[in-house]
Amino acid sequence: MFETRGRTITEADIVSFAGLSGDFIELHTNEEFAMKTPYGKRIAHGALIFSVSIGLMTQMNTIADTVLAFYGVDKLRFTKPVFIGDTVRVVKKVVEGKELGPARGVVTFETNVLNQNGVVVVAYRDKLLLKRRGDSNAA
Amino acid sequence: MFETRGRTITEADIVSFAGLSGDFIELHTNEEFAMKTPYGKRIAHGALIFSVSIGLMTQMNTIADTVLAFYGVDKLRFTKPVFIGDTVRVVKKVVEGKELGPARGVVTFETNVLNQNGVVVVAYRDKLLLKRRGDSNAA
Amino acid sequence: MFETRGRTITEADIVSFAGLSGDFIELHTNEEFAMKTPYGKRIAHGALIFSVSIGLMTQMNTIADTVLAFYGVDKLRFTKPVFIGDTVRVVKKVVEGKELGPARGVVTFETNVLNQNGVVVVAYRDKLLLKRRGDSNAA
Amino acid sequence: MFETRGRTITEADIVSFAGLSGDFIELHTNEEFAMKTPYGKRIAHGALIFSVSIGLMTQMNTIADTVLAFYGVDKLRFTKPVFIGDTVRVVKKVVEGKELGPARGVVTFETNVLNQNGVVVVAYRDKLLLKRRGDSNAA
Amino acid sequence: MFETRGRTITEADIVSFAGLSGDFIELHTNEEFAMKTPYGKRIAHGALIFSVSIGLMTQMNTIADTVLAFYGVDKLRFTKPVFIGDTVRVVKKVVEGKELGPARGVVTFETNVLNQNGVVVVAYRDKLLLKRRGDSNAA
Amino acid sequence: MFETRGRTITEADIVSFAGLSGDFIELHTNEEFAMKTPYGKRIAHGALIFSVSIGLMTQMNTIADTVLAFYGVDKLRFTKPVFIGDTVRVVKKVVEGKELGPARGVVTFETNVLNQNGVVVVAYRDKLLLKRRGDSNAA
Repeated sequence: MFETRGRTITEADIVSFAGLSGDFIELHTNEEFAMKTPYGKRIAHGALIFSVSIGLMTQMNTIADTVLAFYGVDKLRFTKPVFIGDTVRVVKKVVEGKELGPARGVVTFETNVLNQNGVVVVAYRDKLLLKRRGDSNAA
Repeated sequence: MFETRGRTITEADIVSFAGLSGDFIELHTNEEFAMKTPYGKRIAHGALIFSVSIGLMTQMNTIADTVLAFYGVDKLRFTKPVFIGDTVRVVKKVVEGKELGPARGVVTFETNVLNQNGVVVVAYRDKLLLKRRGDSNAA
Repeated sequence: MFETRGRTITEADIVSFAGLSGDFIELHTNEEFAMKTPYGKRIAHGALIFSVSIGLMTQMNTIADTVLAFYGVDKLRFTKPVFIGDTVRVVKKVVEGKELGPARGVVTFETNVLNQNGVVVVAYRDKLLLKRRGDSNAA
Repeated sequence: MFETRGRTITEADIVSFAGLSGDFIELHTNEEFAMKTPYGKRIAHGALIFSVSIGLMTQMNTIADTVLAFYGVDKLRFTKPVFIGDTVRVVKKVVEGKELGPARGVVTFETNVLNQNGVVVVAYRDKLLLKRRGDSNAA
Repeated sequence: MFETRGRTITEADIVSFAGLSGDFIELHTNEEFAMKTPYGKRIAHGALIFSVSIGLMTQMNTIADTVLAFYGVDKLRFTKPVFIGDTVRVVKKVVEGKELGPARGVVTFETNVLNQNGVVVVAYRDKLLLKRRGDSNAA
Repeated sequence: MFETRGRTITEADIVSFAGLSGDFIELHTNEEFAMKTPYGKRIAHGALIFSVSIGLMTQMNTIADTVLAFYGVDKLRFTKPVFIGDTVRVVKKVVEGKELGPARGVVTFETNVLNQNGVVVVAYRDKLLLKRRGDSNAA
């Protein structure tokens, strides 16, 4: 099991993500609108939290610089809202590993993104091509 | 079937996405490194193209402002690299629809992101809670 | 009459706009300075609100993808300050329309940007070249 | 007559402005689309050039820190396209000045934004409340 | 002695700087983590304040557009934390000047960055190649 | 000796850094101006390369998450220009180490930032408070 560092999701992150993705859905960009929804305030884009969870993984000592390819993701679920000021971290559990010769392997992770209260906010299963650390052959 | 407008993926998008997600994997941020990989040059983050595909969907006349919730994504696959300067657009096909009363429904789409040559670069199946256009009850 | 969705103007928007435009006038960037002005706190750049009002218009179902050219703007007035956290929306009224053949027309709008209290914060008159929806001839 | 420094309009500026304003009109964001228009390639948003022209003005030694209020703009015209890589600068001519006591005045400028070939790309008439340099009374 | 305008350091600045520099050290990006450090909350990156201090200098009437080269910096010290919402300004004192012909000179400054309470938060000694104002020969 | 990954410095990085720092000196932002200087084209801000070098250090497996405090920098020199498209990496050599009890130490590095041709573009000496890896006591 791997656990990443945490990161606080800021209003600036949501504003930047709206601008970068082009998703200006009012639940993310209009506080007056969001106040009248069951959430009561603006929430982060699900794809932002998913993207941050990948970034946090690449910053882990154990995984960083060993990722050769990102095959895909399954059962990506946005289970709980993430609000401005929430802090997320990622817990990854290996659920399957397949050797591809001596230096590489395909690893499937069960990934959970948790907020500061330990509640799972995003969950998914991701498959990556990793190289063994120390393998100097980049790709 | 719905088709979104297109968007050119720029170097600035990749740089911004690295900074926003925290994913500085060299295949996205180091041209010298990328030159020595089979890709031959930097490629866009898969999660960036996924994020842009959601943004493009929200800009469609037919869907914009009808999205009430984003349940999840399955079989998200990064099938081909997206390079700086490629232009992507999104094609969505309804594969399942379930009515939730008179004004809402859960719709499952088969989504393909294509580049300027019509090649699928990202594919996924997404499930959304949509409201009927004209329904004034926001959430 | 058209009305756009709303958007909350955040501190991040003002910071980004200062950096993008290069306008670091202290009323926008220095809270200590702004506290001593009649406004009492930092205010958004007028040109930011003007720019956001155009963005909001392009996100309207009725207008998006029909804009062929933006001729100009008259009587652009910054009537009231917009503060961090205010939510603006745009109301556009056609004041003049001229057909340019069967598929295009020049439309002049009276545009008002309102905050969450219904107060006009920016007003202008803008002239656009629009195509009829369904016209497949892009430009 | 005042002349500002110049600034090269980059692809990154256009991408940032699309994200900040929310204006993703394809002429600014889709190179494939833009290739088929009379422009032949993506062009900068008119409101970006207008915004940059204000930023350049605030960076002038003669005007910076003397701007107390921005009253409004008239006859804003987007006369020529600005392409990626073009360099713009601003020329301002006082066309009217009104004293408001000993330390302040309302000044109307005829403003032209020129590209590297000396062609006017944006033009407008703007009215500002300026204080005399050396006036320590901030607002 | 020169004193620049002030600038409020926002959460958006810290988020942008983390993304631009790639420094996601948790003291800058994780509020939960920072709460348990002696600082009690997130602090700005030292290099952000250093960078802003150079930007503020270039916006001074007396120095802007006279900087020909930036030789180097000595004794750069991050003496006190800068928190979100603090407002910094820069005070520069000439400590050495060397003429390089009639139009240029190398100037060494003792530079202090102060917060809104007058406390020095960053200090350094910087050496610049400046031209005399009015010298039309750009470089 | 430690060596970081590399990072390509893009036009988008320079544009973002100008906006974040407020340093719009024309050598960084005006291609027409820069063409007439001895550099022949726009160069990156020295403080941008310095900031990126810190970011690259924090992404190293050996150092990331062990930085407790950044004391200061000496002899920071901008020895060669960095152009758009150059790729920089950082080499750090310990020149002094002082134990502060069993779990912490102050380390002084001789740091060189090199471009893709192995030329030193920025050099400095930096002093950091580091904790031993495995020390669970955050600060």
